[in-house]
Amino acid sequence: MGHQDIWKMLIVAMCLALLGCLQAQEFKGHVSIILLGATGDLAKKYLWQGLFQLYLDEAGKGHSFSFHGAALTAPQQGQKLMDKALESLSCPKDLAPSHCDELKAQFLQLSQYRQLRTAEDYQTLNKDIETQVQQDGLWEAGRIFYFSVPPFAYADIARNINSSCRPHPGAWLRVVLEKPFGHDHLSAQQLASELGSFFQEEEMYRVDHYLGKQAVAQILPFRDQNRKALDGLWNRHHVERVEIIMKETVDAEGRASFYEEYGVIRDTLQNHLTEILTLVAMELPHNISNSAAVLQHKLQAFQALRGLQKSSAVLGQYQAYSGQVRQELQKPDSFQSLTPTFAGVLVHIDNLRWEGVPFILVSGKALDERVGYVRILFKNQAYCTQSERHWASGRSQCLPQQIVFYIGHGELGHPAILVSQNLFKPYLPTQSWEEVQDQPGLRLFGRPLSDYYAYRPVREQDAYSTLLSHIFHCRKESFITTENLLASWVFWTPLLESLALEAPRLYPGGVESGHLLDFEFSGGQLAFSQPLEVLLPELGSVPKPSDFQVLRAQYRESPLITAWPEELISKLASDIEVTAEQSVRRFGKFHLALSGGSSPIALFQQLATGHYSFPWAHTHLWLVDERCVPLSDPESNFQGLQTHLLQHVRVPYYNIHPMPVHLHQRLCAEEDQGAQTYASEISALVANSSFDLVLLGMGTDGHTASLFPQSPTGLDGDQLVVLTESPLRPHQRMSLSLPLINRAKKVAVLVMGRTKREITMLVSRVGHEPKKWPISGVLPLSGQLVWYMDYEAFLG
Amino acid sequence: MGHQDIWKMLIVAMCLALLGCLQAQEFKGHVSIILLGATGDLAKKYLWQGLFQLYLDEAGKGHSFSFHGAALTAPQQGQKLMDKALESLSCPKDLAPSHCDELKAQFLQLSQYRQLRTAEDYQTLNKDIETQVQQDGLWEAGRIFYFSVPPFAYADIARNINSSCRPHPGAWLRVVLEKPFGHDHLSAQQLASELGSFFQEEEMYRVDHYLGKQAVAQILPFRDQNRKALDGLWNRHHVERVEIIMKETVDAEGRASFYEEYGVIRDTLQNHLTEILTLVAMELPHNISNSAAVLQHKLQAFQALRGLQKSSAVLGQYQAYSGQVRQELQKPDSFQSLTPTFAGVLVHIDNLRWEGVPFILVSGKALDERVGYVRILFKNQAYCTQSERHWASGRSQCLPQQIVFYIGHGELGHPAILVSQNLFKPYLPTQSWEEVQDQPGLRLFGRPLSDYYAYRPVREQDAYSTLLSHIFHCRKESFITTENLLASWVFWTPLLESLALEAPRLYPGGVESGHLLDFEFSGGQLAFSQPLEVLLPELGSVPKPSDFQVLRAQYRESPLITAWPEELISKLASDIEVTAEQSVRRFGKFHLALSGGSSPIALFQQLATGHYSFPWAHTHLWLVDERCVPLSDPESNFQGLQTHLLQHVRVPYYNIHPMPVHLHQRLCAEEDQGAQTYASEISALVANSSFDLVLLGMGTDGHTASLFPQSPTGLDGDQLVVLTESPLRPHQRMSLSLPLINRAKKVAVLVMGRTKREITMLVSRVGHEPKKWPISGVLPLSGQLVWYMDYEAFLG
Repeated sequence: MGHQDIWKMLIVAMCLALLGCLQAQEFKGHVSIILLGATGDLAKKYLWQGLFQLYLDEAGKGHSFSFHGAALTAPQQGQKLMDKALESLSCPKDLAPSHCDELKAQFLQLSQYRQLRTAEDYQTLNKDIETQVQQDGLWEAGRIFYFSVPPFAYADIARNINSSCRPHPGAWLRVVLEKPFGHDHLSAQQLASELGSFFQEEEMYRVDHYLGKQAVAQILPFRDQNRKALDGLWNRHHVERVEIIMKETVDAEGRASFYEEYGVIRDTLQNHLTEILTLVAMELPHNISNSAAVLQHKLQAFQALRGLQKSSAVLGQYQAYSGQVRQELQKPDSFQSLTPTFAGVLVHIDNLRWEGVPFILVSGKALDERVGYVRILFKNQAYCTQSERHWASGRSQCLPQQIVFYIGHGELGHPAILVSQNLFKPYLPTQSWEEVQDQPGLRLFGRPLSDYYAYRPVREQDAYSTLLSHIFHCRKESFITTENLLASWVFWTPLLESLALEAPRLYPGGVESGHLLDFEFSGGQLAFSQPLEVLLPELGSVPKPSDFQVLRAQYRESPLITAWPEELISKLASDIEVTAEQSVRRFGKFHLALSGGSSPIALFQQLATGHYSFPWAHTHLWLVDERCVPLSDPESNFQGLQTHLLQHVRVPYYNIHPMPVHLHQRLCAEEDQGAQTYASEISALVANSSFDLVLLGMGTDGHTASLFPQSPTGLDGDQLVVLTESPLRPHQRMSLSLPLINRAKKVAVLVMGRTKREITMLVSRVGHEPKKWPISGVLPLSGQLVWYMDYEAFLG
Repeated sequence: MGHQDIWKMLIVAMCLALLGCLQAQEFKGHVSIILLGATGDLAKKYLWQGLFQLYLDEAGKGHSFSFHGAALTAPQQGQKLMDKALESLSCPKDLAPSHCDELKAQFLQLSQYRQLRTAEDYQTLNKDIETQVQQDGLWEAGRIFYFSVPPFAYADIARNINSSCRPHPGAWLRVVLEKPFGHDHLSAQQLASELGSFFQEEEMYRVDHYLGKQAVAQILPFRDQNRKALDGLWNRHHVERVEIIMKETVDAEGRASFYEEYGVIRDTLQNHLTEILTLVAMELPHNISNSAAVLQHKLQAFQALRGLQKSSAVLGQYQAYSGQVRQELQKPDSFQSLTPTFAGVLVHIDNLRWEGVPFILVSGKALDERVGYVRILFKNQAYCTQSERHWASGRSQCLPQQIVFYIGHGELGHPAILVSQNLFKPYLPTQSWEEVQDQPGLRLFGRPLSDYYAYRPVREQDAYSTLLSHIFHCRKESFITTENLLASWVFWTPLLESLALEAPRLYPGGVESGHLLDFEFSGGQLAFSQPLEVLLPELGSVPKPSDFQVLRAQYRESPLITAWPEELISKLASDIEVTAEQSVRRFGKFHLALSGGSSPIALFQQLATGHYSFPWAHTHLWLVDERCVPLSDPESNFQGLQTHLLQHVRVPYYNIHPMPVHLHQRLCAEEDQGAQTYASEISALVANSSFDLVLLGMGTDGHTASLFPQSPTGLDGDQLVVLTESPLRPHQRMSLSLPLINRAKKVAVLVMGRTKREITMLVSRVGHEPKKWPISGVLPLSGQLVWYMDYEAFLG
């Protein structure tokens, strides 16, 4: 190859590198692969074999290769360790042994050990590669650095690679990173920005080896190749649920120091199961070989995930775990770990495709079987007229319909893709997937294996081999981009934080666990099916909140209802419903004015889910007060009402009366007369401007509605609706006035939480002093006032 | 008993009768029961036995009885026939045979035949009863007339009873009527008003004998006695589906003349299955022995039923049926009946308790088994961590959870109530229900019998016996009131009419029918699971609408898209989505102005169900035009938008912009400046007042939006929004003006249906003449105009 040719090639290569790696790949040259941690467990078990496989696949196709096994160990000893690791390399079954030996010998010749400790070591490596490429008259295509080392070593290595080991411009650099990628959002961000100072985003390949597992890697191709059949099915109208499951029989023994720091959510849910979730849930790009499109759609799937609550998860811990931690980490006998070894999490996706479909993520150690699968169960929307005895399994639409990506292990013992025969016959590429032979007696997911179209890989391949090939072929969609990583941590971190002090349920492990870890979901919440009381009868009957009666008493000479929060909200919701029914019966409609803030949210949720005969179609909803922000602002009281109530019930559009705080593109400008407009809307629709029910809260300073102590407006006078100032941001508010509130037929004041204890005490003693304590001015002229307080607010 | 006592009793009785029959019942006296049609089939088979049972139950409790069997037959022959019918009376098993014989002899003595043909016959009957009561020194409590006669005889008998056979004031009259109660809403109304001219509503007992079947009669008591367990379960959050099924093996042979007139829907769905539906669906009154409350709640359930569409039902007819009709009704060989002998109907209930829960009603003749049941299947909302092999049937929440009211027959062979053991242990009154013995090998609804808490009646009782007792005890809730009857016909009549000319699918009958009658439901629609094409391959491949391509052409020098209605709507919906995505990507929002009318409704439905990634959260919805009626008026364009689109997608409240046609309690008053208000809202929010997409229609007079020919406003000038006059009611309209429409980036005109053919032709030829044909003035200044026409509008 002449100089001119080399220059031409270099220029072409540079252009291609700029264009993106897919095209660059077509340009052949020398590739150096540096395996950092070459003598470690992962390398021994999977990575060398993966590199050998890569060599087998690619060697004849124009590229030349060199493999550098690197570690901190001194050269001689390192080489010995590496040789040992290389001894066990095996060829695929379809390769003749003699040919295999030949190829193996070639591979060994191309592989050498190298100590990489100091900056100089890296410089030497760089020089050696350059020299070798020149000597052999080759052109360098690129370098792959595989970081099979603990994360604390990342920064040093990255710095050295960046400063001394980058190939010349025009050749590519790829660094491959292994999890853990942080411990929460903050640490992941720090790690990412540190790496970002050394590498470009397109140079980094973060491995989640589940993305290389054959059944997982097939999810998108399967969706793509069966678009026609799946188009109408892959949505909330047809999918009943999605289960993403990874059960292990092993426990954490011997790995307690790692596990105690991470726990099951960080170990498997945040990464493996979440990645699978996005592959199932994402909108399918038109072209799935377009990495950028796949990654973008994946990211959009993250954006649609509904935030997790504490109640979105159930946690367990196998009984022996704390003992193992005490032993391995030399903890005192009293030490009890709170680290979960089992988690079930319910994920909802708030887009039109998946709204309402439960995605169930489960992972745990010391369970009854080792198995991993993704199961899409379809809704049974058929009625079969014929008696069950006569149902034909392949044709009856009344038998379960499911698609399972069987990751491995379990009763089947190998990866597979199963599609119920009454669903459709899937297309799978025959060169890589073949039909599974029936195994009589084997039942999977409630049906005999023969009920499925079942396929297994023609050749089982380890995830790392697949991923190494994807790295080489620049298939970035099989890896975790920084955006993707951070999106996942944004999703998981709040849950991890809220659960940090929760005691997981203990389970004996194995089959012994029985139904202890079964759980149920409803309305976005998860709970174990078996209540703990049943499990621990020896504790005696601890009184539960529901054992306490709702207490009735007096407060400020008006009726007081006090109870635990849940009962209090229930009682208030029922009282509102009764009032609503009475009003609708008598007047044909019900005018309800609601406050914002956090306490009413539980009420809204209760009303939204538990009250089937609430006359919403005849209810008018008004706001007691509003912050001067656009209605769509998350801070807006209206927004809370919309999210927690309006979205779930059918209140006609024209019965909803948000406060006009945003007129002519301005917020609460006096001259826009928003308060007056609201007042005339009330006068026009509400007879005598007397609401049927006004729901108020009470602030720790004694404010109610948005009427604050010493407010110059709203505490008296003729105005029905006023603009006020809050001591807290956003300062500007709109509020019903005290005189208007006091015209209501009924006023309910809801006070909850320990922080209200002091003001509750104080207000119980003061007279009618609305200037000091606006709440003390609430006294309906001819209506009824009722106080609803939870025990914490009332009893402290 | 002295005269004074009798008077006292009479007065008391009169008062009680006025107060309602429950209390009156406590006052004992003589009861005459007149069975009209005493020698007919029903009488022989059930009614005499029922009367005897009534006598057995009530004889010792203070009332005295006489039983009059009546018919048209002459006395002697009639008495003979009646005696024959009475021979087979049987006693309950727990009665000693000797005691039974004694009671039977008593009953026979109290029973006599009586010819009732002429008005005189009725007068004689009346006199005889009065005489007998007086002779025996009794006081008359009341009379029951049981009409076991064909409906054509009702009017005559009713007239005679009313004019000659009413008991004295203070005693009650009850007339018992058997179905059919009409053939559709109109005939039912006529029949009801005819009967209403003779009897008070409270005097009439319309029998639906299914309400007397033990499992059906237990539905409300079961719901009542298990309130605590069912309270949280009996709703859309937990119920997956409700099946109300009545399968028969017999066919209509020998009854063709009746059946040909009625068909399966009138024969069983309109009455039996609908009654059961209301018992399951109704809100449970606090006190289920309050007949009035039960009847009222039942009526409310009717009001919540969603109207049926043609697509709510699938119909079948067993193959031999037409032949039977030809033979029995002497029809020509070419005669093919359209009467269905099988129907599956999907009912939805639009209230918060049941919204979205499918109620499946199925009934048919010549099926594979005889069985009747109501099955409430609950949602599986559990994940069971343990492998399926280890599930304990009574405890695993992953096994099916169901409650079945088993009406009778089928594999169980007797009435029963089944509750899955993993659900809860139900309460049933032990004096009337006992546990069913397990029958190994017997599976019901997918699970072995042993998986259920299963109960059967201690004593099986025929429905008529139960109902006769209810008539006697004045339990009106077990009967069909006029309101209830008419509500049911209001519900069923539109479906019956729309299906009148549909050819039912033919099925061979029995087990042979295979999966031919299985059906599926989705989005409120039903369809057989097996498409007919597969069944009739010999017909060749008839082209379906979907085989036709969407045609692209020009119309008025703008692009024209033409297709069958379904494809056209699909295409328009996709085009809107593409435009929406582009707008959101470029500007962050999408301003869409929609027209009212009927054509867009299909579009709204398509957008509501088929477009998962439509950016609703960033879409602003505007109205092209509006009728000057309140927004909540069914005529309002906004109301159509609300019902068919807004209820199903998540458009934020503040992105919805209805036209302000209703201000200050007035409709479109000039001085309220609604048009100006809307114009400034548009100017404030829509950049350059240029909508991203405006959807228009075209009227047969060439109007578009609410811009009518010769309109003095809106066709030109500066106004963005105008008030206009329509030639049709409601005359007053608000509309975007042509100049505003023409500022849009894109305008789509949707034209559908044969009635548009002429104007389509005409407008294709005219120039720019908006005064004559406002649609001809649509020409976006710098935007794009696209015509969407279905073949009927375009090709006629």
